[in-house]
Amino acid sequence: MKIKIGLIGLGTVGTGVYKTLFNSPEVEIVKVAVKNKNKQRNIENFDESILTDNPYDIVNDENIEIVVELIGGVEPAKDLILTALNNGKHVVTANKELIAKNGEEIFDCAQKNNRVVLYEGAVAGGIPVIMPIKTILSANAITKIMAILNGTTNYILTKMDVEGAPYEEVLSEAQKLGYAEADPTSDVEGFDSAYKIAILSAISFKKRIDINKVYKEGISKIRPQDIKEANELGYKIKLVAQAQLNNDGSADVRVHPMLIKKDSILAHINYVKNAIIIEGHPVGSIALSGAGAGEFPTASSVTGDILAIANEIGKTDYPLPMMRCTHSENAVMYDINDTVNKYYIALSVKNKKGVIGRLGAICAENDISLSNIVQKGVEEDNTADIYVITEQAKERDIQRMAEALSNDETVNAITGFIRVAD
Amino acid sequence: MKIKIGLIGLGTVGTGVYKTLFNSPEVEIVKVAVKNKNKQRNIENFDESILTDNPYDIVNDENIEIVVELIGGVEPAKDLILTALNNGKHVVTANKELIAKNGEEIFDCAQKNNRVVLYEGAVAGGIPVIMPIKTILSANAITKIMAILNGTTNYILTKMDVEGAPYEEVLSEAQKLGYAEADPTSDVEGFDSAYKIAILSAISFKKRIDINKVYKEGISKIRPQDIKEANELGYKIKLVAQAQLNNDGSADVRVHPMLIKKDSILAHINYVKNAIIIEGHPVGSIALSGAGAGEFPTASSVTGDILAIANEIGKTDYPLPMMRCTHSENAVMYDINDTVNKYYIALSVKNKKGVIGRLGAICAENDISLSNIVQKGVEEDNTADIYVITEQAKERDIQRMAEALSNDETVNAITGFIRVAD
Repeated sequence: MKIKIGLIGLGTVGTGVYKTLFNSPEVEIVKVAVKNKNKQRNIENFDESILTDNPYDIVNDENIEIVVELIGGVEPAKDLILTALNNGKHVVTANKELIAKNGEEIFDCAQKNNRVVLYEGAVAGGIPVIMPIKTILSANAITKIMAILNGTTNYILTKMDVEGAPYEEVLSEAQKLGYAEADPTSDVEGFDSAYKIAILSAISFKKRIDINKVYKEGISKIRPQDIKEANELGYKIKLVAQAQLNNDGSADVRVHPMLIKKDSILAHINYVKNAIIIEGHPVGSIALSGAGAGEFPTASSVTGDILAIANEIGKTDYPLPMMRCTHSENAVMYDINDTVNKYYIALSVKNKKGVIGRLGAICAENDISLSNIVQKGVEEDNTADIYVITEQAKERDIQRMAEALSNDETVNAITGFIRVAD
Repeated sequence: MKIKIGLIGLGTVGTGVYKTLFNSPEVEIVKVAVKNKNKQRNIENFDESILTDNPYDIVNDENIEIVVELIGGVEPAKDLILTALNNGKHVVTANKELIAKNGEEIFDCAQKNNRVVLYEGAVAGGIPVIMPIKTILSANAITKIMAILNGTTNYILTKMDVEGAPYEEVLSEAQKLGYAEADPTSDVEGFDSAYKIAILSAISFKKRIDINKVYKEGISKIRPQDIKEANELGYKIKLVAQAQLNNDGSADVRVHPMLIKKDSILAHINYVKNAIIIEGHPVGSIALSGAGAGEFPTASSVTGDILAIANEIGKTDYPLPMMRCTHSENAVMYDINDTVNKYYIALSVKNKKGVIGRLGAICAENDISLSNIVQKGVEEDNTADIYVITEQAKERDIQRMAEALSNDETVNAITGFIRVAD
């Protein structure tokens, strides 16, 4: 007897899951909930009689043992998942927003019902990362994660690098190709990456992460000349999702663009690829990379979760003990203003004597040392561009210095401000 | 009540496992078998009363539920593991040679006793690969693996590249630093990599792999000038372990040096690092990299396996269903002579007119096309060096051509012969 599966959502990933499991000897998709039953499906010989437009037909179906939620967003996904769990079903989801925002409520409900909620597909598409962290890496004290978790922004930054094209132009091209959505806010402003790094840090640090306190900054202010200067200084610019467990137990979790040294792994992750670097003891540093999204890569993770549950049903009274999220401690979230970083700062200055000296003085007043300083030729309007990279500095000091620079009569504008990875 | 663990072997990895689990709330190492009880141990406040010099004290101990075998080699490891399984214990091992040679007997014995044998530490140190393939990637049809699985040879090749030093010199330095063993044969001649790729291909293709039919070739013939020429042609030389499932179901599993394009992931894996690239459907291509050996990285994998078992004990009658090796089909092993590859060939030739023309004729006679040909300046002894890279060619044709070249009066010797990755 095959384990019966109900699928909510038959979009890109749902279609990939359906195709992957079509001939499975272990499981069978018996019902699929969609918005529009009459829509043409890109599936050969699809049996439309299994379609419903009411997802509650699935979570309330007595024969279904695993509910797969692939519609995304908080509601109605949350209520559907809670109903499924309360009805004794296991749940597989790829819903990063829901897990990041309401993980506590969902995992508590799962535990109360002795059911599991798996969500490998929520982070980094087909790259195995959640199950490895929770199982084979479980003896580790994980202290740091550096990752590229959003394919859309990585595609845009790669294209801007390769073609020297401006952000708006590449975004519009990406939208035409289907790599960016009509409303790209969630991707380009860092929300998507923030959900994902919140999930990874929660399972890595075994603490609850307040998604509202994850600092995020997107890529819309990055200019082609920042990418060009970064290249000349030996760096690539990437949207990095980062999580660090400080010695005092506080969690520094954030998403922002970063200059990444060209010889590091993340600098080589291009276009829609994702990568995750995990540091911990005893494992040291490991890197996982691959396709971060798409019909089939994400389907690999979703079907892996489904088969993991299906293999336990009927064999144990407490399935997948390691895959449960039972930590209850809330992480103290470290404020971005308390962090220490290196910074890339681009300035448009007046082209007159003493500007570099003035810049040096403002740095010194604010306790900032510079490791690189580059002045580029004078523009037609008699302004010049200066690019600096600082040594390690406190975010508060840098912000104070940036204000002093903005107010200085030699400076027209701060045109670029990007943190630099060590 | 903590789960009781018996540890056989307290060398590098065993010490790492002991330290990692010292304060575990879940498991407790209650007995450790060593060769010499009086040896000084690099462990703080070590309780020597748990030592025994008879490993059968562990596999026959009624209180021990998980036996961890870390002595390596076939015997006595095999008999100890079989005895432990027949005594109802679960087993964790990092013994690649034993699993590659006698996996069938061991897994059959485990299944008969409803116990599991886990061996993440046998392949690629701390990099999670066996558990991910068997669990979260289980829906995939894996068709190809390309990997660097031996830290010693990768260290030697990296040093030869960076320093331009000859093989023997770097090997001897590696031996002094402890990166290579006094008898380096298992590493440098490819045995170690062969065991590991046999294990990975068995779990990926779900077929038994005959370790005796895994083609292997080591790195001892690689010269600094091959590495230099490869660099100029856009390649790095790596000892690659490769496994491919052909369309007819046969398995092409082999270990040999390869020229790898500089922009590919494996080209950036240096020194003692390992990496594994897995290709399959639906996941596409994913890459996993990190420390491939050492006290702590391998301890991460061994302790991960221990905790995976410990979490199931007492909770289920059939622990870890996905982690069992129950495939019974023997793979048809594809012969290296039937394979198709590109080849790098270095020739020492007589410095006289018509040599290149003669080379071209011999290639044509054997159905070989060349994509690169480089001739280097005349040596003092009036010989010249020619380096070629071929297009895709059958191994049989290349071998026949190599013989023709060797016998040709214009050719002094074939000085380099290395396959080239696509």
